[in-house]
Amino acid sequence: MGGEPWVGEGHARSAFGMSAAPETTGPQSEGPQHLPGRVRAVIEGIQPQVDAGRFAIKRTVGDRVTVEADVFTDGHDKVAADLLYRCAEDDEWQREPMQTLDNDRWRARFSLPRLGVHEYTIEAWVDPFETWRQDLVKRFEAGQDLSVPFLVGLALIDAAAGRAAGADAQALQDYARELQQTRDDPVSAYHRAREDELAVLVRRYPDPETVGRAHPPLSCRVDPTRARFSSWYELFPRSASHDPGRHGTLRDVIDRLPYIASMQFDVLYLPPIHPIGRSFRKGRNNQVGAQPDDVGSPWAIGAEEGGHKAIHPELGTLEDFRELVRRAAEHGLDVALDVAFQVSPDHPYVQAHPEWFLKRPDGSIQYAENPPKKYQDIYPFDFESPAWPALWVELKSVFTFWIEQGVTIFRVDNPHTKAFGFWEWCIRELKAEHPELIFLAEAFTRPKVMHRLAKLGFTQSYTYFTWRNTRQELIEYFTELSQEAGREYFRPNVWPNTPDILHEYLQFGGRPAFVVRFVLAATLAASYGIYGPAFELYEGRAAKPGSEEYLDSEKYQRRRWNLDDPASLRDLIARVNRLRREHPALQHNASLAFHPTQNEELIAYTKHAGRQGDILLMVVNLDVHHAQSGWVTLPLEAFGLSEAPYQVEDLLSGAHYLWHGPTNYVRLDPQGQAVHILRLRGRVHREQDFDTYS
Amino acid sequence: MGGEPWVGEGHARSAFGMSAAPETTGPQSEGPQHLPGRVRAVIEGIQPQVDAGRFAIKRTVGDRVTVEADVFTDGHDKVAADLLYRCAEDDEWQREPMQTLDNDRWRARFSLPRLGVHEYTIEAWVDPFETWRQDLVKRFEAGQDLSVPFLVGLALIDAAAGRAAGADAQALQDYARELQQTRDDPVSAYHRAREDELAVLVRRYPDPETVGRAHPPLSCRVDPTRARFSSWYELFPRSASHDPGRHGTLRDVIDRLPYIASMQFDVLYLPPIHPIGRSFRKGRNNQVGAQPDDVGSPWAIGAEEGGHKAIHPELGTLEDFRELVRRAAEHGLDVALDVAFQVSPDHPYVQAHPEWFLKRPDGSIQYAENPPKKYQDIYPFDFESPAWPALWVELKSVFTFWIEQGVTIFRVDNPHTKAFGFWEWCIRELKAEHPELIFLAEAFTRPKVMHRLAKLGFTQSYTYFTWRNTRQELIEYFTELSQEAGREYFRPNVWPNTPDILHEYLQFGGRPAFVVRFVLAATLAASYGIYGPAFELYEGRAAKPGSEEYLDSEKYQRRRWNLDDPASLRDLIARVNRLRREHPALQHNASLAFHPTQNEELIAYTKHAGRQGDILLMVVNLDVHHAQSGWVTLPLEAFGLSEAPYQVEDLLSGAHYLWHGPTNYVRLDPQGQAVHILRLRGRVHREQDFDTYS
Repeated sequence: MGGEPWVGEGHARSAFGMSAAPETTGPQSEGPQHLPGRVRAVIEGIQPQVDAGRFAIKRTVGDRVTVEADVFTDGHDKVAADLLYRCAEDDEWQREPMQTLDNDRWRARFSLPRLGVHEYTIEAWVDPFETWRQDLVKRFEAGQDLSVPFLVGLALIDAAAGRAAGADAQALQDYARELQQTRDDPVSAYHRAREDELAVLVRRYPDPETVGRAHPPLSCRVDPTRARFSSWYELFPRSASHDPGRHGTLRDVIDRLPYIASMQFDVLYLPPIHPIGRSFRKGRNNQVGAQPDDVGSPWAIGAEEGGHKAIHPELGTLEDFRELVRRAAEHGLDVALDVAFQVSPDHPYVQAHPEWFLKRPDGSIQYAENPPKKYQDIYPFDFESPAWPALWVELKSVFTFWIEQGVTIFRVDNPHTKAFGFWEWCIRELKAEHPELIFLAEAFTRPKVMHRLAKLGFTQSYTYFTWRNTRQELIEYFTELSQEAGREYFRPNVWPNTPDILHEYLQFGGRPAFVVRFVLAATLAASYGIYGPAFELYEGRAAKPGSEEYLDSEKYQRRRWNLDDPASLRDLIARVNRLRREHPALQHNASLAFHPTQNEELIAYTKHAGRQGDILLMVVNLDVHHAQSGWVTLPLEAFGLSEAPYQVEDLLSGAHYLWHGPTNYVRLDPQGQAVHILRLRGRVHREQDFDTYS
Repeated sequence: MGGEPWVGEGHARSAFGMSAAPETTGPQSEGPQHLPGRVRAVIEGIQPQVDAGRFAIKRTVGDRVTVEADVFTDGHDKVAADLLYRCAEDDEWQREPMQTLDNDRWRARFSLPRLGVHEYTIEAWVDPFETWRQDLVKRFEAGQDLSVPFLVGLALIDAAAGRAAGADAQALQDYARELQQTRDDPVSAYHRAREDELAVLVRRYPDPETVGRAHPPLSCRVDPTRARFSSWYELFPRSASHDPGRHGTLRDVIDRLPYIASMQFDVLYLPPIHPIGRSFRKGRNNQVGAQPDDVGSPWAIGAEEGGHKAIHPELGTLEDFRELVRRAAEHGLDVALDVAFQVSPDHPYVQAHPEWFLKRPDGSIQYAENPPKKYQDIYPFDFESPAWPALWVELKSVFTFWIEQGVTIFRVDNPHTKAFGFWEWCIRELKAEHPELIFLAEAFTRPKVMHRLAKLGFTQSYTYFTWRNTRQELIEYFTELSQEAGREYFRPNVWPNTPDILHEYLQFGGRPAFVVRFVLAATLAASYGIYGPAFELYEGRAAKPGSEEYLDSEKYQRRRWNLDDPASLRDLIARVNRLRREHPALQHNASLAFHPTQNEELIAYTKHAGRQGDILLMVVNLDVHHAQSGWVTLPLEAFGLSEAPYQVEDLLSGAHYLWHGPTNYVRLDPQGQAVHILRLRGRVHREQDFDTYS
């Protein structure tokens, strides 16, 4: 042999990666002496993890993480395993002994009291003392002579004592001495040797040469609770004026805060508030060529008054904005800003940093295009520019500027049209200093692109909810979101409408359609949002047939809304948002389960939180034109309910029902009550509580 | 910002691992300038791979590997991807452009003409020329002015020409010059610019700063064909004597070769042929205390005559063994040796290397124990000995010794009771020099342990087949083996019997049970083996009720077998093994599919090879006492068969049947014909041929 012993396999350098301590890996040697040859325990299949540890899993403060792994060794020896975890800023690992399950699977949990990145990994080793202890029982019960086995055990205790310090060392020495003294009395020595306290002591001091660690460690990003549970309200400040003839201001938005807070929202999200470009400005209803009094699109950012760090003069001043943030906080509202990394031709960047834009051969700057369509009012940044490092630094500074004004939540416009690498770097850098930040990715695009953005750091993500309207679509999509692998990193934030999307279900369903879509959003997902007042006033007029654009869209003009409309959904929204705050079941996604209804127009699903919380059953009539009835079948046993009659309370209407057995009758009418939010007083029996996923 | 920009996330150093060229990763910097910022393409989810590349996938010579991955970028630009592959000994990568499938999935294949470890990875990049080409079509069809777009395309061609060399550079320059000259004639310039040849040329020379590579590369272990397709026959040489009064020899085994070859086996596997210990030797039927004429267990290796590198004097000499290997080869047979890393108390290692064994506190060497049972005839090696490096080297040298005698196949006894790290190192080292070696793991233990051994390097693995006897058990187990993730590395070698296992199905089923289990083994799995002549002579007597041990087991005594028994299964075995050689369908596992029979005692399954090969349908009556009939339902469309009558040929009996439609009647009688091996003359339609898995 000899020759090139490590050439044989591509992964030679990491060949022992999953079972060896870091410092002992990586030899390029002829013999085995540099390998961690005495590490006999194997660690495989650690869960949770995302892409083999390439990305962090996500949790929120106060959550705990259940970690499982396959741990085993050759032969019949016992193994032991510890879960190691720490805040990434700490040097020291904390430890939790893992418990064995079936089929060589082990489990332990750790809690997350702090924001920021945490790390976790697993150590495992062959445990000769535990092996000895179990064999001792068999020998004793077979009546064998124990004198030699006692000596073996003594040596193991001595060795552990030698590795221990302080009180543990003393306790181990005491045990050793006692075993030494009593070994002429095998029965009492046997019982002493079997004491759990001794096993726990010895277990703490394994021979370090035999301990393997899974590495590199896996990561967990711990976000604020609002990353998991949030209710968003979007409005255009320029439409917030009391006086229809006047441009709305940030001060007007301050006046609007009690209205928004009365609906129990958490987040007030504003479209871009920066100066708006004049070149190629779009007119009302997206017409080419604006009239002099047209206000333009807020996403055409930048004019001579400034760019991404300036406030549109007609909206007010930076001081007004800071005041808005402060006053919103008094109402329990975070102000979320829209960050759209694109510029109008009038943006100061265009003159100051032409190197950040693609220059066409004729010397002009490349405007946005989707051939043959041209968007000459927008210049995209060139992320392949040789000057990309300075561009990245500047774009990151936009966030920093607004963080300094008190903003902690950003809704990022079309992040999927900027380089992934930029976002990963930018979000990591920002959250390293401000772990409380929340970034919502507004990427309505292909599934893998959306998932990539969530993996690389976006805290929440817009979804396809707006286009999932039938029972089957909803069941499939929300089962995927709540049950599949993506739940480790993809936190859905679902919107029944946005300024860009007025789905035909809303265009043609009238007020009942808004009720249905609102209740679905607010109860299917822990985070959701609406674009108002268009939503609560059930604005359903489209720009033209087949379009999802609003007629007279606020994207291009100011609108006046009659907030006092008696048919406004305001009260329903307030009631449901209050239920969301009162019931932890609605603040998580992982417990979501759908149930049969025997009617395609009725969708029924439950959510619960932990073992102790109540169980909420939602039943929604998706048919906005006709009353529908059906039979809802529940898994009584899983919910701790018996066949005996049980009470069900409708949290919206206050009505009480007496239900019998698993299958019960429901009737819902779009003209009356189209939805049930029912409380079952059950109790969920599970081997394991849910982790509180994203 | 600033501060500790890379501290935020645990995997910072590999943060760009999947999208960056190796040399550009790993900065610990404040700004982004050291990141591969211009790499915008993402590579995710590469398949196949085992444990995120920790272990190699396995294939055999002549196979090809189908590699898929998710490849995409931000925005709407086109991406390109190459599959890179090479023999691990080579420096240069070979390339294959990947083709796009649905949903951002890409695919390419590479072939494996050579033994040894191969590597593969993927490169991807944003392809501005392809983006430009597609946009050009849209602009042209919209009647837009193309003069500026032509200049853009020219710049891209010029840049590619600058990175190219030789004929490609010349061809690109020619294209550029022509486009320059003809751009006043937009129609002809347009058609020229769209030529595929130009796109292929430009694609070869992407800007290297924009190319990302998935790394580290993944590995594929390429084994000889026999690793995938093999028929094993085991016998005890000491029972091979013509003269019942005389100890069999290796020369006797040479005389037995025509008999074994007549049954069309590929591998002749011999239990250990080394000197057998005398201390604590076991007598007949595993009795404690051998009689003077008891021959002992061949697995109690080592006596004063020698150890693992010596031949039992009663079997013959090393020259006899080499002669056996040569003569076996003439019959198309490889001789497989049993490697059992344990020693008798008389093994020379015990005196020469006491440090390789665990010493008990009383000074004695620790014998094998499973408390309260003691196996004082066997000393295990101590893999946690401080002298482990020398032990590993010596054990490896045992293989080397027998490789030098011409052995290429090793059946390893109980590998799961030796350190995993040893096997990984040992097999890798040996196969680096001798990629043709085959190691069969005899580990009948927990599933994850068996899988670990297969992952870390064992070429084939014993299975639970012996204990899977009902229809449902067989369907579940072989579906797992042939369809689930383990098929990338776990190659089953299934045995209806071994010297250690005589299942009760065989004990009580008589000759028909042996027929059934043999046909199942030989047709369900591409590799199988029998322990003979006990098998073909349907020896079914157990040591005692409830035991799986043979009565008068050859493990402890010599046996005499009547090879001329007219009821021997020899002819059936020969016929089925010949079918295995003639029909590629039986030489692979991946195509295995089970089909309904409407009778729990009848199991029906098909195998086929590629698109062109015929389809074999096996139907087996698992009831060895009664005739059974049922209706076999086939997926006609998948097999390219219509509802029209089609011919079915029984390859065992030679009978022909005319079948109609998907469901046909079958009757099998254990006293007559208990099994069908039927050829369907269909054709398999699939989007993709099977990879030829393990």
